Amino acid sequence: MTILSPDILSTLEAQGIELPSWAFGNSGTRFKVFATPGTPRDPFEKIADAAEVNRVTALAPSVALHIPWDKVGSYDDLRRHAEDLGVRLGTINSNTFQDDDYKFGALTHVDPKIRQKAIDHHFECIDIMDATGSRDLKIWLAEGSNYPGQADMRARQDRLHESLATIYERLSGEQRLVLEYKFFEPAFYHTDVPDWGTSYAQVAALGERAMVCLDTGHHAPGTNIEFIVMQLLRLGKLGSFDFNSRFYADDDLIVGAADPFQLFRIIFEVIRGGGLNSPDVAFMLDQCHNIEKKIPGQIRSVLNVQEMTARALLVDRAALAAAQEAGDVLAANAVFMDAFYTDVRPALASWRESRGLPADPMAAYAASGYQERIEADRVGGVQAGWGA
Amino acid sequence: MTILSPDILSTLEAQGIELPSWAFGNSGTRFKVFATPGTPRDPFEKIADAAEVNRVTALAPSVALHIPWDKVGSYDDLRRHAEDLGVRLGTINSNTFQDDDYKFGALTHVDPKIRQKAIDHHFECIDIMDATGSRDLKIWLAEGSNYPGQADMRARQDRLHESLATIYERLSGEQRLVLEYKFFEPAFYHTDVPDWGTSYAQVAALGERAMVCLDTGHHAPGTNIEFIVMQLLRLGKLGSFDFNSRFYADDDLIVGAADPFQLFRIIFEVIRGGGLNSPDVAFMLDQCHNIEKKIPGQIRSVLNVQEMTARALLVDRAALAAAQEAGDVLAANAVFMDAFYTDVRPALASWRESRGLPADPMAAYAASGYQERIEADRVGGVQAGWGA
Amino acid sequence: MTILSPDILSTLEAQGIELPSWAFGNSGTRFKVFATPGTPRDPFEKIADAAEVNRVTALAPSVALHIPWDKVGSYDDLRRHAEDLGVRLGTINSNTFQDDDYKFGALTHVDPKIRQKAIDHHFECIDIMDATGSRDLKIWLAEGSNYPGQADMRARQDRLHESLATIYERLSGEQRLVLEYKFFEPAFYHTDVPDWGTSYAQVAALGERAMVCLDTGHHAPGTNIEFIVMQLLRLGKLGSFDFNSRFYADDDLIVGAADPFQLFRIIFEVIRGGGLNSPDVAFMLDQCHNIEKKIPGQIRSVLNVQEMTARALLVDRAALAAAQEAGDVLAANAVFMDAFYTDVRPALASWRESRGLPADPMAAYAASGYQERIEADRVGGVQAGWGA
Amino acid sequence: MTILSPDILSTLEAQGIELPSWAFGNSGTRFKVFATPGTPRDPFEKIADAAEVNRVTALAPSVALHIPWDKVGSYDDLRRHAEDLGVRLGTINSNTFQDDDYKFGALTHVDPKIRQKAIDHHFECIDIMDATGSRDLKIWLAEGSNYPGQADMRARQDRLHESLATIYERLSGEQRLVLEYKFFEPAFYHTDVPDWGTSYAQVAALGERAMVCLDTGHHAPGTNIEFIVMQLLRLGKLGSFDFNSRFYADDDLIVGAADPFQLFRIIFEVIRGGGLNSPDVAFMLDQCHNIEKKIPGQIRSVLNVQEMTARALLVDRAALAAAQEAGDVLAANAVFMDAFYTDVRPALASWRESRGLPADPMAAYAASGYQERIEADRVGGVQAGWGA
Repeated sequence: MTILSPDILSTLEAQGIELPSWAFGNSGTRFKVFATPGTPRDPFEKIADAAEVNRVTALAPSVALHIPWDKVGSYDDLRRHAEDLGVRLGTINSNTFQDDDYKFGALTHVDPKIRQKAIDHHFECIDIMDATGSRDLKIWLAEGSNYPGQADMRARQDRLHESLATIYERLSGEQRLVLEYKFFEPAFYHTDVPDWGTSYAQVAALGERAMVCLDTGHHAPGTNIEFIVMQLLRLGKLGSFDFNSRFYADDDLIVGAADPFQLFRIIFEVIRGGGLNSPDVAFMLDQCHNIEKKIPGQIRSVLNVQEMTARALLVDRAALAAAQEAGDVLAANAVFMDAFYTDVRPALASWRESRGLPADPMAAYAASGYQERIEADRVGGVQAGWGA
Repeated sequence: MTILSPDILSTLEAQGIELPSWAFGNSGTRFKVFATPGTPRDPFEKIADAAEVNRVTALAPSVALHIPWDKVGSYDDLRRHAEDLGVRLGTINSNTFQDDDYKFGALTHVDPKIRQKAIDHHFECIDIMDATGSRDLKIWLAEGSNYPGQADMRARQDRLHESLATIYERLSGEQRLVLEYKFFEPAFYHTDVPDWGTSYAQVAALGERAMVCLDTGHHAPGTNIEFIVMQLLRLGKLGSFDFNSRFYADDDLIVGAADPFQLFRIIFEVIRGGGLNSPDVAFMLDQCHNIEKKIPGQIRSVLNVQEMTARALLVDRAALAAAQEAGDVLAANAVFMDAFYTDVRPALASWRESRGLPADPMAAYAASGYQERIEADRVGGVQAGWGA
Repeated sequence: MTILSPDILSTLEAQGIELPSWAFGNSGTRFKVFATPGTPRDPFEKIADAAEVNRVTALAPSVALHIPWDKVGSYDDLRRHAEDLGVRLGTINSNTFQDDDYKFGALTHVDPKIRQKAIDHHFECIDIMDATGSRDLKIWLAEGSNYPGQADMRARQDRLHESLATIYERLSGEQRLVLEYKFFEPAFYHTDVPDWGTSYAQVAALGERAMVCLDTGHHAPGTNIEFIVMQLLRLGKLGSFDFNSRFYADDDLIVGAADPFQLFRIIFEVIRGGGLNSPDVAFMLDQCHNIEKKIPGQIRSVLNVQEMTARALLVDRAALAAAQEAGDVLAANAVFMDAFYTDVRPALASWRESRGLPADPMAAYAASGYQERIEADRVGGVQAGWGA
Repeated sequence: MTILSPDILSTLEAQGIELPSWAFGNSGTRFKVFATPGTPRDPFEKIADAAEVNRVTALAPSVALHIPWDKVGSYDDLRRHAEDLGVRLGTINSNTFQDDDYKFGALTHVDPKIRQKAIDHHFECIDIMDATGSRDLKIWLAEGSNYPGQADMRARQDRLHESLATIYERLSGEQRLVLEYKFFEPAFYHTDVPDWGTSYAQVAALGERAMVCLDTGHHAPGTNIEFIVMQLLRLGKLGSFDFNSRFYADDDLIVGAADPFQLFRIIFEVIRGGGLNSPDVAFMLDQCHNIEKKIPGQIRSVLNVQEMTARALLVDRAALAAAQEAGDVLAANAVFMDAFYTDVRPALASWRESRGLPADPMAAYAASGYQERIEADRVGGVQAGWGA
């Protein structure tokens, strides 16, 4: 119970994880989207659900929006709605993959008119950022080609630079551009930003306020993700995380569900590189709750990040450094594993209680009646989803 | 021009590749389905498009149906429609992944009522087979779980056996049950039939008319697929192929597009194992034309299979055997590669012409006016797609 | 401290893990084998080291031998030596990959004389089994080809059956043949027993005392190994485990080091399928300690298996079944994860002490002076290694 | 026969592929190195064998050396020996993976004395470059760790920069430093230069004469290698290729043997990016001939590169660009595939003859008697190998 020192606890207290609005909408595979009772019909209801996650965990102070899925008449209203519920609006995510014009690319398209349309969409996103007070414009470039020969990869890369530069110029003040990379999907032969190297080269060519977004599910099989975390922190270019987990492709499962030890290693490297609670590195979730309940799925996710952060903070770094310097492989590994295997959950539960939070946020949510209420109330209308 | 012997040509003449009706409907990723002008609105129009592929290639004599997507009022009418257009109805594919009841399984579901519902669906498929004269009931079991602990994998395997046995008992005459395996998707942690071994063990427990379906896109990275082809032929359990190609996951690209040499190796092993033009081994396509035109996509596909079959038939098997026995690695490989690198396209073109077929089926289709006609005619109604 | 029930503790008490004699010799990659001070020069010294692992853990009652690496003049002497040190001789492993004659295969070779030589080697192994009292003959078939066309995969499969059948016939009494599969290496194009399906088909064709060996490092990226464990137990054909872990290929790292949660899932499936402490399922290690100390490496390994077995035994299976039946994904997963995240180490330590064992076997070994003794004593001679 | 235009032929005539001296020595896996009759005993014999490859192909004008494997008393003698045989000495490869001191790293080692030793080794390599007239110092950094926690990845990255900078400073004139990356092996958890992004970031921090080496076998499963080729050419940092092929890990098979179409795509991207016959981009082989004959293996390899270059030069780039701009996926892919499927071998054979070269270099070598001569002559001594 006393395993978490005051230092560790104050670090944990400062932790905040941004929730994606789309996690509260319906999602699925190309084969089927299963609908869930109580699913929000609009951004206001998504924010309400996100606030519920924060209410029982104090871990989720902000919500990322996705444009156009989260377009509303008044962003002032949405902002006030969020603030009334104790959360704020966060990163703005653009969308270049659902317009018929973007079938063969958007920011990379061979046709300047379509590129301009995609650029204008990002300008609109920046206008929304101005209204919401969001700092980050996150671009996941779902662009590429399906067949060898279909596209001129090099020319697309050059056009991408040009488009990004135009968007970057429009940013003001503290606003940032964060460029996500992804190994594959929806494109099946080449993806225009498939790896951290490409994202890094592109943002480095833009300027200081352009950063890389690392989605933990967007890598080739076997990739050492914590190494990339280390490298991007070292290069000063890690802008944000999209946390989730996977066994195969971009499965978007609950963070920590597939390989908890990998999450531990990633967070340890964040800590070691100065990225924890750093203003420069945003912690976000990017998940799909295809078959499990969405609000509890998000609660489980932020708790997983918190618990793993606590474990990673427990690593005895002096002992680790000594073993590393001595070339004592087993001793160094043992120091590392000891922290991972320590069960921090009881200590976290009592710490939560001491702060007026529920010891067991999952149980607290289940007991709150919120789920029953939204299932009863949210009848009629169109449930939100990726295509909404 | 003279490289294809009469023996090879008569083998090629006997080749038939079954087209999937769903290849003519719209498809896409979980992110977006792009619609295409001229897309069929019903099974009759799908059959018409499939017949067009056969008209210019003489390679696609049959069409597989998917139930419920291809349910019609009268299967007699559909059958006559097909026959009028020179093709026949082929394999019946069942669907256990799009009903809300199947969220946690169908033939494997913990609830006997839902299993019975899924079994009844297969009984309905068998009734349709009786009406269409189809031989094969193909079952792709899109069942599994997303999170460790979610499901009892062992109990599901036992229930799967029980369900399959019940369905198998209903088959009559020459009818067969063909069980497809898939590495992952739509389930992201465990899949109930994830590999050839499981499919083999399940069908071996049913009886002689239960076989394995090998989809070339359904394997782990790096899997030697031709080895599996060899093994299933050796065990007498290769029932059918679903041809397509992939770079990453189950990309469903045009067969031969991603790795032509792999296709060559697969077809060589089919020939070597007696599976070419064997009544026991059905050649089918299972592809998605997300961004390319669908009918030409299917024409390209059957031509790819034909061209690669011609190359594989060119392997000098006596020379190959001699080099293999001598342990001459480079000589054996050279015999193999020589066939692969031989350009059979001119010889095939002139052979096609000698049979009254277009030398260039792609060009013939483009010149036929069919595409323009369907784009003009098929206005209104709901385009077919996976969810239709 | 009281988290491990008497039932769990008595189950753990019965657990035994077989050590591989070769883990105590030098090993490395194709680039370099780093020698370690104190490495055994002969099988007697390997057994002594293995006995040391058992002395501090009571978890490693037997030692697997590899022929010809562990050939000795008198197996009676070796057996008595082992018994004097409190361990016994276990599985006999054959070797068909280090004789110049086997460059293109052994049991699968095109030349019957070479096949007979390989069969005779296995007859010799069976003679040794008779002398050592070993039950299992384990065959890892390091055979295959490097280039497409090099080999006739089908004919090799048939010859493999014939060779195995000849060997199987020679077994007597309770002796078993256990056939290991491996995704790739040392062959780089095709491997003759590359997957569980092939191993299963081959041993099923032999008879009841032929079983499959599952090496946890021998699968394609992303393979759900616990599913295979489940299936082989269901089919009654899981003969033994080779435990180790990996990030990439067949890395042969310490079991549990790369993905502890995967080890948890595997052992849970063993328990669920009746394979824990079953006479039919041997638990063995197959590891390389390339850069870490070997004896502590083995101690760490058996402790990892023990600790993970304790966690897996903690799963509340009634609660799990209830959540699974209710389709409550998050609840089922939570039951599962709760066991995994429970820190069993303090309870195990005090239980060890209660049995007269060191609470911390790693520390006890370090304090024992054994390592210093062998480093001082074992000077001169040729250190054992894979090529020895 | 007339398919290769004068332009294409003159481009092909300028092509040169550097051979690795180590391809002529024995190699194998961690399990076994099979020796081959006629294997060179020293660098002079390796050069002689390499010259034989060039004699029958005119494609292999230079030979890369590996230090210390190719250390000789007089590099002047070696250089003259090479020139007498019509070839020259090329890239110098350093070795930081076979000294006992380098067990835990060399240029990245925690101990400054060991780092200095590794730096001094590179200084020696540069001295050799001065003597041989080599331009490139190629560094494959076989450094990393096997277990999580074993090493401080970030500190190693910083030390790597420092070591490389020290080495880079020592270069003079046109000399370059080329840094190779590799996904994994011999390290099994983390590798210090695991991907192109890391190599790029490291060499970009050094200066203009530091470049990236792309080994085609050093990527994660599924990686789009031609994309990386494109990107590195775009960034001006592609220094050299190590050609080989693979099905699984770093199999080091003959280039083009595993996936000929991938080789085509890679070379097409080299051409498109201006890297063909560019002084800045060295074409080298890095292969192992574990079971096939070595000199013919190298002849086959350079022919594969030549043949695939010819195919890639055949791509109708105007037609390709038109189809790409029109968004005609199938037409663009068809232009691409048409070139790949064109059989350039007869035209190349007659072109070779027109230049006084053998039409069939493999047959010419076999008929030359060279192999029989070296097998008879090279008796006694120690055959060269990786450990030599």
